[in-house]
Amino acid sequence: MLGNFTYCNPTKLYFGNDALKGLKEELPKYGKNVLLVYGGGSIKKNGIYDDIVKILKDCGKEIFEDGGVMPNPTVEKLYEGVERAKKGNVDLILAVGGGSVCDYAKAVSVSVFCNEDPWDKYYLRMEDVDNKIIPVGCVLTMVGTGSEMNGGSVITNHEQKLKIGHVFGDNVMPKFAVLNPEYTFTLPEKQMVAGFFDIMSHILEQYFSGEDDNTSDYVMEGLLKSLIHSARIAVKNPKDYEARSNIMWTATWALNTFVAKGKTTDWEVHMIGQAIGAHTDATHGMTLAAVSIPYYKFIMPYGLQKFKRYAVNVWNVNPENKTDEETALEGLKEMEKFMREIGLVMNIKDLGVTENMLEGVADSTLIMEGGYKVLTHDDVVEILKASM
Amino acid sequence: MLGNFTYCNPTKLYFGNDALKGLKEELPKYGKNVLLVYGGGSIKKNGIYDDIVKILKDCGKEIFEDGGVMPNPTVEKLYEGVERAKKGNVDLILAVGGGSVCDYAKAVSVSVFCNEDPWDKYYLRMEDVDNKIIPVGCVLTMVGTGSEMNGGSVITNHEQKLKIGHVFGDNVMPKFAVLNPEYTFTLPEKQMVAGFFDIMSHILEQYFSGEDDNTSDYVMEGLLKSLIHSARIAVKNPKDYEARSNIMWTATWALNTFVAKGKTTDWEVHMIGQAIGAHTDATHGMTLAAVSIPYYKFIMPYGLQKFKRYAVNVWNVNPENKTDEETALEGLKEMEKFMREIGLVMNIKDLGVTENMLEGVADSTLIMEGGYKVLTHDDVVEILKASM
Repeated sequence: MLGNFTYCNPTKLYFGNDALKGLKEELPKYGKNVLLVYGGGSIKKNGIYDDIVKILKDCGKEIFEDGGVMPNPTVEKLYEGVERAKKGNVDLILAVGGGSVCDYAKAVSVSVFCNEDPWDKYYLRMEDVDNKIIPVGCVLTMVGTGSEMNGGSVITNHEQKLKIGHVFGDNVMPKFAVLNPEYTFTLPEKQMVAGFFDIMSHILEQYFSGEDDNTSDYVMEGLLKSLIHSARIAVKNPKDYEARSNIMWTATWALNTFVAKGKTTDWEVHMIGQAIGAHTDATHGMTLAAVSIPYYKFIMPYGLQKFKRYAVNVWNVNPENKTDEETALEGLKEMEKFMREIGLVMNIKDLGVTENMLEGVADSTLIMEGGYKVLTHDDVVEILKASM
Repeated sequence: MLGNFTYCNPTKLYFGNDALKGLKEELPKYGKNVLLVYGGGSIKKNGIYDDIVKILKDCGKEIFEDGGVMPNPTVEKLYEGVERAKKGNVDLILAVGGGSVCDYAKAVSVSVFCNEDPWDKYYLRMEDVDNKIIPVGCVLTMVGTGSEMNGGSVITNHEQKLKIGHVFGDNVMPKFAVLNPEYTFTLPEKQMVAGFFDIMSHILEQYFSGEDDNTSDYVMEGLLKSLIHSARIAVKNPKDYEARSNIMWTATWALNTFVAKGKTTDWEVHMIGQAIGAHTDATHGMTLAAVSIPYYKFIMPYGLQKFKRYAVNVWNVNPENKTDEETALEGLKEMEKFMREIGLVMNIKDLGVTENMLEGVADSTLIMEGGYKVLTHDDVVEILKASM
């Protein structure tokens, strides 16, 4: 049943191969000083950096650079970004990159005027923002996290072996986002498919929760079918604009709060994946891929009807003359086949996890309560073992 | 292929059986004078009117009444509403009702400060708004049009035999909308199912256009399946909260601009339906229902693959050992069966159309260019004849 909720998503999106013109429209709305946030520097090679700097200068902006945001942005980097933003007295944070860069930009956005340690306040204690927020805009160069149209922000603390996400409210969501599918063409294949699975996992984490028959269950089945269809095309031809643009659009809607409205959600795969990330620094989407099939096999008996529905509606499994369990398992088998086909990492050993790390990873795994089974510490260890 | 687009939908939604609390949250954001817009007075019988007036008074608002908005709001009523809004110097227009009331509220919103005839400017000449807009909020008591989260506004001019919709930009969209599924429980069955078909038609008008395989095609199939599922439950038990809430949520997403982004759309069924409405004043959803099957049979040869996809993905037609045409037709047959099952009016005679009106209705029908076939005047007459 649809529970009560509020919905508001004010982010303005500019989508298409001419989307950068949106940046020109947006910049005049903000003050002079812009913190330009980006990652390892690939945008300097492919020309996106130069295009953006030109637009910023044409609009009379003063640029304060903040490059080098790592794939799993750390709390130390966050502290550094806060100092840069303070020094520049910045009016806008412009994130150019993928989900990590956008997540980091939002973390800086809420932390500059925070009068205590933002890691403690926002990530450990999950408190609401009660200080001034610096507006964020995004230019996306990588697809998956949906960070361009949500309030989510994941930060990693290697010392504490914790990778934690905070979902902030609509006041922290990016004010605008530029989505040009062509910007994702040059991404290495491993990163590309990791992003595809991140999208898939976002949908599944929201789908596999509750026994209900909500509108969003049907919508999520549609999003999954579109993603599977387009991912198969994109791995063969990463420059297929149609496939990449549909995947980009699917990624946004997979995690911009719409499909979660009025229903419970799981997010345990992300919790296990993030724990692996905290211990290994492995690519986010791959950590999710490596544990998903073992996780879903483990919880399947507790939500059998939804897994059967998933098999039939998403993977076209014919349920005739099969037990519900056989149908459901066949769906997971089809999913696994698809995952191998697009080249995902299917075990955590390949991500650098060793036997003697399993207990530690389980210790770092936050336990969620919205899924079909609330895991125990031993359950997590069992799933990790099955993922080796 | 996904075309280039911008997306922004800032409407804040309060959804659920406690949604009216959202009105209390929103009212302090606006000035003292509120134009309270509603329809035939059913809200005075079911208590919604009293609840709202109490909240308005508790929030210190001065109420200016504007009741009696008819199901197809007329241009004369619009002129009257403009005068009332001017007299009250209103700061907010609060629409309490269904799509007609919301559409009308938006029409008043853009017309109060318009220095020429708003019918000419906005409906005949389809010009953009360049004057001050009075903000609109909605409390929905009827489901179908999606008017609560879009810029659409349809006004009827009986003298000119024209019923025309203008889709205004996101600055005219309601600032907030209160969506309580229980408010729709007392609606007469005829109105309820007409609303269901209005939703269905909105999705189909956007689905049956373009040969593409966009994310939104998959999402629309999900929305359709959810709607069909819940509509069957709701006609048996109109007070089934789960069904009514899912239908309410589907209606919003069927026409809040999301699924149309990056693709072409048709809207010819609405054009024919609105022409019938201009001549007969028949219920909007019923005018769409009565012409849909003949229309889709007529255009099917021009978009056969999409009709085949519709049959398979929405109506579970098995395409094996069938020609594409047979599969597609079976889909339309299933659709017709469903429409009869929920009690829709299936011919225009029952809506008051007579043989000698057909030419006039065709004359009043605007011709759209996004569908699989651009109709001629004679095509419209042929479809109308097949709908008798």
